[in-house]
Amino acid sequence: MTNPQPPIDERRQAWAYLSRVFEGPSRELTNLLNNRRDPEAIAQGIRRRESWLGDILARTHTRYQDDRAKADLTTMAAIGGRLVTPDDPEWPAEPLDAAFRFAASGKSDTLRSYQEDAVPPHALWVRGSNLRQLCAQAVSIVGSRAASNYGSHAARLISAGLIDHHWTIISGGAFGIDSAAHTEVLARGGTTIAVQACGLDRPYPRRNHDMLTTIAQHNGALVSEYPPGATPQRHRFLTRNRLIAALSSGTVIIEAAWRSGALNTLSWAAAFGKITMAVPGPITTAQSLGCHERIRNGDAAMVCSADEVRQLLAKIGDIDVGEQYEMQFAATPVQKLSRNEMRIYDATGPRPIPTDQLAHDAGLTIGLTVHLLLSLAQQGLVERNGNAWQRAVSPDPREVHAGVG
Amino acid sequence: MTNPQPPIDERRQAWAYLSRVFEGPSRELTNLLNNRRDPEAIAQGIRRRESWLGDILARTHTRYQDDRAKADLTTMAAIGGRLVTPDDPEWPAEPLDAAFRFAASGKSDTLRSYQEDAVPPHALWVRGSNLRQLCAQAVSIVGSRAASNYGSHAARLISAGLIDHHWTIISGGAFGIDSAAHTEVLARGGTTIAVQACGLDRPYPRRNHDMLTTIAQHNGALVSEYPPGATPQRHRFLTRNRLIAALSSGTVIIEAAWRSGALNTLSWAAAFGKITMAVPGPITTAQSLGCHERIRNGDAAMVCSADEVRQLLAKIGDIDVGEQYEMQFAATPVQKLSRNEMRIYDATGPRPIPTDQLAHDAGLTIGLTVHLLLSLAQQGLVERNGNAWQRAVSPDPREVHAGVG
Repeated sequence: MTNPQPPIDERRQAWAYLSRVFEGPSRELTNLLNNRRDPEAIAQGIRRRESWLGDILARTHTRYQDDRAKADLTTMAAIGGRLVTPDDPEWPAEPLDAAFRFAASGKSDTLRSYQEDAVPPHALWVRGSNLRQLCAQAVSIVGSRAASNYGSHAARLISAGLIDHHWTIISGGAFGIDSAAHTEVLARGGTTIAVQACGLDRPYPRRNHDMLTTIAQHNGALVSEYPPGATPQRHRFLTRNRLIAALSSGTVIIEAAWRSGALNTLSWAAAFGKITMAVPGPITTAQSLGCHERIRNGDAAMVCSADEVRQLLAKIGDIDVGEQYEMQFAATPVQKLSRNEMRIYDATGPRPIPTDQLAHDAGLTIGLTVHLLLSLAQQGLVERNGNAWQRAVSPDPREVHAGVG
Repeated sequence: MTNPQPPIDERRQAWAYLSRVFEGPSRELTNLLNNRRDPEAIAQGIRRRESWLGDILARTHTRYQDDRAKADLTTMAAIGGRLVTPDDPEWPAEPLDAAFRFAASGKSDTLRSYQEDAVPPHALWVRGSNLRQLCAQAVSIVGSRAASNYGSHAARLISAGLIDHHWTIISGGAFGIDSAAHTEVLARGGTTIAVQACGLDRPYPRRNHDMLTTIAQHNGALVSEYPPGATPQRHRFLTRNRLIAALSSGTVIIEAAWRSGALNTLSWAAAFGKITMAVPGPITTAQSLGCHERIRNGDAAMVCSADEVRQLLAKIGDIDVGEQYEMQFAATPVQKLSRNEMRIYDATGPRPIPTDQLAHDAGLTIGLTVHLLLSLAQQGLVERNGNAWQRAVSPDPREVHAGVG
């Protein structure tokens, strides 16, 4: 499932240059890219201080000569990392597009303050497995760094139940709740992503070095918007929280006290139109105050088990915005499939295709692919043939009416 | 605050006879009483098997000769108890009328199954203080008999915060959550009611005998629909749960697991249009499953502190149904008073009246009366004169416009 190292060509060097020069998301750079400006031309223009770049010249004034693109890419390659860009098939376009399209639409009326900061990442530094596959079915779990035994237990319980259904757990790699979630996933051979607020050559926090390295090496990934050598700073954590929320279908907070960073992540999830969830806890300590506050205000659904998380995510997460109402009247088994089931079904054909090929074609992890194929087989839509799968022959399920198949 | 022993006259003996003969609430008896039939005439008719009583003859067939009215009243008087009837000023008419009127209106669409059992109590056996005063500002707290340390701690925390604001805590006197709530109230010198499912000559459970006796002796009350000697039976507990809910402005459940009796009390509260509340707990044990379920389904508001309980009760509990919309446009400080503040304000006049007299006139406990008088004084509506209170002289607050006073 690991990704082949992409070539360090001129274009990727341009992206790497932009990553270091902008140091995080930039509204101006996003506007240029949205207007189909070429990243190489933008990088060139910044180096040469070309006037058409306007405000960007001021923004890059102190760093435009810091051209370490090739070195950064080489440094990352040496530790098994790479820079993933919107050019790459690995780019997690689905969750990011959904998130930033929603934020830009202004539908989130309570969170207008987040709107102006809702700038998508330009490129992502990654160590580990294919990012798009990992994010195809992902939920974030975040919470207090100073978690109680209860909080850690709850994080493990929720993570375990989600891993069993092939959900990727996204978190921040921090102590406490983050660590409890990541560790449970590793123990169960599941997939997890730690989104970092620093360069991936120096995973943070240091005392979690072994856990973070293991995540990168065992079917998971470390992800960051920041180039090698970048140190964790307060503003980067807030930017990082936005990325955790954007890459997930929903966010679960556990033991978020007042002013916890986890609440910031949850607010981002709301701003992105993702499912917001909070785990309750004892009222006799202050550690779940933030969770209770969000539940009470209706800003998060209360969840007490992984099953409840999955039910909430299934309700909306699988259905693209706009399609919701039509889906209610879906008539055939195929039309009733979840988004990821549909991806796998569409990858199958009349002749058997090996599982790993299907996973690749659909852009999903092997684990999730097998899980979905078994579900499709149960519904009589695909048939197994050794290690390969093909569509069920008859009756053509697209013709079968609901309730009959 | 204790109530003078009412006379054991013919009429009270008729009520006591009916209490024993019907053994709990009866729809037929309620209908007769609603049609202004005299209880003495009904008792007489039952004794003489008069045909106008219809179905009631069959219903009372096995017990109509069991005429122990005078003995029951004497037994109760010997232990400081009495039978309180709708004839008495002590009858808690406000909470009961509101509850059973709401239930009869059929407004509670999810709880139609409760409607046919929603028969008001005909009379109540009481040991302790004035029942109407105790119920003027009362909330029930119920939960698991097998409470965890967490559950007991939570019950004490919520009870303490409510007692500090002169709320009476109603519960069932059982082990676990009930005991934690009652005990905390006693320790703080507050007022509490234990509603029993048996005769008050044998408080149940026996191991709580000391606590229950103390409740009756220290400004609280034991209450039951059942005559002396009645044993606790399963159906009586369900009937009792309805009474706990009916006497309160709202019900809080703490550590209600699946199929907990506390959930039955909460459903009654909903059927009566009272405020339904549940305290969350750890998701890592099963003990709060029922609480979480009710919160998730929207059948109970999540509450994490006594302040939240009070806020929810203030929102609706103080305002009579039908007056809600008018109240929003209230213009003067007096019009903005809570129901209980209004009761005290109406009891005051241009000349000083002693606090205990005001409490008696308003039908509130001394503690709550002082609390409300201080609040009215802060609003400039009453003035203190030694141990007595009078209305503030000028300007006449009924003329003062909102925001000016």
